[in-house]
Amino acid sequence: MNERTGIGATAAIARFVSTLRSEDFPREAVERAKMIVADSFACILSGAGSEVAPTMLAYIDEAPGGAVPILGTTRRATPQLAALVNGTFAAALDYDDLMTPVHPSAVVVTALCSELGGGTVSGKRFLEAYIVGIEVGAKIASAIGRGHSGRGFHATATLCGFSSFAAIAYLKALSATQIEHGLGIVATNSGGLLCSLGTMAKPFHSGLAARLAVDAEALTRLGFTASPVALEAERGFFAAYGDENSDANLIEASLGRPWAVIDPGATLKRFPSCIAGHRAMAAVLDLKKLGATAGNVENIEVAVAPGALQPLMYPKPETGLQSKFSMQYAVAAALVDDRVGIVTFETDATQREAVKDVMSRIHAWEDPQQAVEDPVSANLSWGYRGYARVTATLKDGRVLRQRIDVPPGHPSNPLDWSDLGDKMRDCAASVGLPPEKAALAFEALRELDTLPDVNAVIDHLVKVE
Amino acid sequence: MNERTGIGATAAIARFVSTLRSEDFPREAVERAKMIVADSFACILSGAGSEVAPTMLAYIDEAPGGAVPILGTTRRATPQLAALVNGTFAAALDYDDLMTPVHPSAVVVTALCSELGGGTVSGKRFLEAYIVGIEVGAKIASAIGRGHSGRGFHATATLCGFSSFAAIAYLKALSATQIEHGLGIVATNSGGLLCSLGTMAKPFHSGLAARLAVDAEALTRLGFTASPVALEAERGFFAAYGDENSDANLIEASLGRPWAVIDPGATLKRFPSCIAGHRAMAAVLDLKKLGATAGNVENIEVAVAPGALQPLMYPKPETGLQSKFSMQYAVAAALVDDRVGIVTFETDATQREAVKDVMSRIHAWEDPQQAVEDPVSANLSWGYRGYARVTATLKDGRVLRQRIDVPPGHPSNPLDWSDLGDKMRDCAASVGLPPEKAALAFEALRELDTLPDVNAVIDHLVKVE
Repeated sequence: MNERTGIGATAAIARFVSTLRSEDFPREAVERAKMIVADSFACILSGAGSEVAPTMLAYIDEAPGGAVPILGTTRRATPQLAALVNGTFAAALDYDDLMTPVHPSAVVVTALCSELGGGTVSGKRFLEAYIVGIEVGAKIASAIGRGHSGRGFHATATLCGFSSFAAIAYLKALSATQIEHGLGIVATNSGGLLCSLGTMAKPFHSGLAARLAVDAEALTRLGFTASPVALEAERGFFAAYGDENSDANLIEASLGRPWAVIDPGATLKRFPSCIAGHRAMAAVLDLKKLGATAGNVENIEVAVAPGALQPLMYPKPETGLQSKFSMQYAVAAALVDDRVGIVTFETDATQREAVKDVMSRIHAWEDPQQAVEDPVSANLSWGYRGYARVTATLKDGRVLRQRIDVPPGHPSNPLDWSDLGDKMRDCAASVGLPPEKAALAFEALRELDTLPDVNAVIDHLVKVE
Repeated sequence: MNERTGIGATAAIARFVSTLRSEDFPREAVERAKMIVADSFACILSGAGSEVAPTMLAYIDEAPGGAVPILGTTRRATPQLAALVNGTFAAALDYDDLMTPVHPSAVVVTALCSELGGGTVSGKRFLEAYIVGIEVGAKIASAIGRGHSGRGFHATATLCGFSSFAAIAYLKALSATQIEHGLGIVATNSGGLLCSLGTMAKPFHSGLAARLAVDAEALTRLGFTASPVALEAERGFFAAYGDENSDANLIEASLGRPWAVIDPGATLKRFPSCIAGHRAMAAVLDLKKLGATAGNVENIEVAVAPGALQPLMYPKPETGLQSKFSMQYAVAAALVDDRVGIVTFETDATQREAVKDVMSRIHAWEDPQQAVEDPVSANLSWGYRGYARVTATLKDGRVLRQRIDVPPGHPSNPLDWSDLGDKMRDCAASVGLPPEKAALAFEALRELDTLPDVNAVIDHLVKVE
C-alpha cells in the first residue's frame, strides 16, 4: 500500500492504464515508439527463418485452427499460440531491442498482434498501447530491482508478461478491475530461468510472456478472478520474485514520469548478435574506412571493460548461435563482410577460411584501467560498461585506432530510418519474403501514427500459399 | 552435482524415470495408486459443475478443435487445453487429495489423460506412470524444502509440473536426454503465487501445471532444447525458487526410497472442504451416532490446535466457497446433513436456517494445551497438527465428547472403496452425469491394474450430446 495515495501497486497500475487518454502521450513518445515498433516487426519476421522455427511450427501444426498470422510464414493460429510463436520468433536471432534488464518490445508488439482480429485498430492506438506496455514493465523492473535477475530469473520472461498485458489492456480499454485481475493472472504464471540462455528456451521465454498476456486478456474478459493485489501482496510477486531491496510502492509515482520509451529509451540492435560485441564491431567498421582490410591487417587488439567479455564465451565458434557470442568472430566478420547482417551469423558463415584467418590474429582482453576510469561501470550490463578500443596494426606498419563508447542503436547514437529499412530488408530476405512486400510493410510502419489500420502492416509480412 | 554419483539432480531424475521397468513397482504401490487415481477421476469430474467451469469452457470454446475429452462435459480440446481445463476442474472444489505440500494426483492424472490419444494404454502402465509422477514431485518438494512455500510460491503450481511431466515421460518412454530437456522446459515455466488462494487462479494453478507437462512433452518430442541441468544450475530452479536450505543433491538418493505413494502416501478427502475442518466434522458424525441431533444440542465446543483455525476465516459464510473455509459451518452442516457432500458446500446450502441456528451455538477455539502436549505440532499443516476435540452439550444435560487425531482419508485412517464409490456418485450427480455411467467408470477403476485400456474409463466420464 502506497503511503501517499493509499492504494497498492496493482491498483495504481490499473488506474494508470485505464484512465490514460490519447492526448496524454507526448509526441516524442509516439515518434520513438514508431521506430522501435518498426524494428520489432523486422525482428519477429526474421525468426521464421531461425533454428527454432521448425520446432515451433511443428508445435502449432499439432493444434490447427485460428486466424492470427504467424509472420514470415503462411501459417495462422489461435491468438494464444500465435503470440507464443511470434514471440519466440522475435527473440530467436538476438536481434530485438534492449531496455535493460529486458527485451520488451518484440514481446509487446507480438502480444498486440494477437489482439487485432475482428476490426480495425489505428496505428496511433497501436503505438499508444505499445508505449503503455513498455512503461508498465519498465517501472515494475525498476521497483523489483537487480536482485530479481540476481536470483536467477530471466527478466524478459518474468516481467514482459506484465508489459504485454498492460499494452493489451490499453488497446482493449479494459476496466481497472479487469486490469487488476489480469495482472494477477500474469503474476501467478510468471517464470523463466537464466540457466535457459543458450537453448531454445531462451527465445521461447519471449513467446511465453506474450502468450500469457493474451491468455490473461481472454480469461479476464470471460470473468476469471485472480488476486487483485498480486504485485504487492504478502505472498505475491514482489515477495516471491524479488529481494529485500524490492519495493512495489515505487511503481506508482514513476508511471509516465518520465516515459520509459523516451528515457531511458530502447537500444535497437544494428547487428544480430550479442550486444557485448557491438561497439568493437562498430569500431572495426570505422577502421575499414581508414584503410583496414582483411588482407592488410597484421593483428587486431580489442580492449573492453572488465566483465564485458563474460557472455562472449566462444573464441572459436562452430555454429551460428555460438558465433553470436564470440568477440573474435564478431570483429573478424565485421572486417571481412561488406555488410554485417543475418547471413554473417549463420552456421555456414562461421566456416569461412577468410574469417578464421583474421580471427587467428585477434587479441581480445579486458582492460582493468577502464574500471579505474569509471568505477560505476561494473553496474552496467555487458554491452554498456566502459568502452571498446580497437587497434589494428597493418602489415605496412601503420597503426589504426578507434574507440567507441556508445553502441550503435543506443538512444544517444540511434539508428535512423535508413538503417531500419536495411534491417527490414535483411530480415525479409532471410525468410524468403518478397522484397516488395517488405518494402510496403516498411512504408506503412514509417507512417504508422497515421495509418488507419495496423492490420495492413501484418498483411504485408506474411507469405501467401 | 551429487558428490556420490557425479551426476546432477536433473540427470538423476532422467535416469531414474527412463530406466524403470514395470517389475520395479511394488504391488503395494500399485494398490495405493489405484485408489488415489479413482479418487482423482471423481474430483476432475466434479469440477465441470463448479463455479470456475463456465469461464474455463468459454475459454476453450474460443479455440475449438482437438480430440481430448473434458470430463463431465461433451467438449473436446487439444491436449494442452484439455490438460489446462481438466486440471483446473480437478482442484475446483478443494476435494482432491493432499500430499503435503502439494495436491499432486489430480494434476498428474489430468496430464496423463491428455496423452492417451491414438492408441491403447493399459491401466497398469497408467498407474505406474502416476506413481513415477508423484515420486519425482515429492522428492523435489522435499529437497527444495518449506522455504519454497515460505517465499510465497504455491507448490501445487510450481512443483506439480515436474510431477506430471515425469509421469508423461514414463508413459511415453522418453529417453533420458529428452527428460532432461523436458524438466528444463518445466523449470523455466514454473509459476504460482499463494496470494492467488481464494480466487479462480488457485484451481487454475493445477491446470497450468498439467498443461505445462503436456507442452513439455510435445516440445521435447519436436526437438526443442532447454537447460539440461535446470534444477541444480547456478541460475536454475533451486537457486531461484528455493532458499538457503534447499539442496537439489538430496533428490537422487531419495527416488523410490521409499516410494512416496506408500510413505507418506496421500490423504483422500472425505469432505469437499478445507482439510482443517475435517477432524471436527468426523467427530460430529460420531457424536450423531451417540444421539446428538440438531434439535437436541444446546451447544457445541470445538477445540483444535494453535493455528488450526487460520485458514477457516469465515465464521458466517455467505457463499459456497466461503463455507469450505468455515469451522462453524462445517460442524453445523455435519450435524444437520444426513450425508455431507458437494451439495453441503454450495451457496444455497449456506442459507439454510437449520444450519445457521446450529452455527449460533458453536464455539470454536484454539487450545494452547495442544501445543504443550505436542511441541512439533506447529510444523504440521493446518489439518494435521494436534487433534480436534468436540464436546456437545445436549438440552437434556448429557455431555457427549469425541476426539479425532487423524483426519478421515489419511493413509493411516484411509477411505475404502465403498467411500470412494460414494464420492464418485456424488461427483457424477453434481455435474448431471448419468449414475450408470459413473458406476461403470468406478467398476473399471477398481480393476484398473488389469484394465486393457484406460480410455474405457474416460469414455464413461464424458457426456454425449
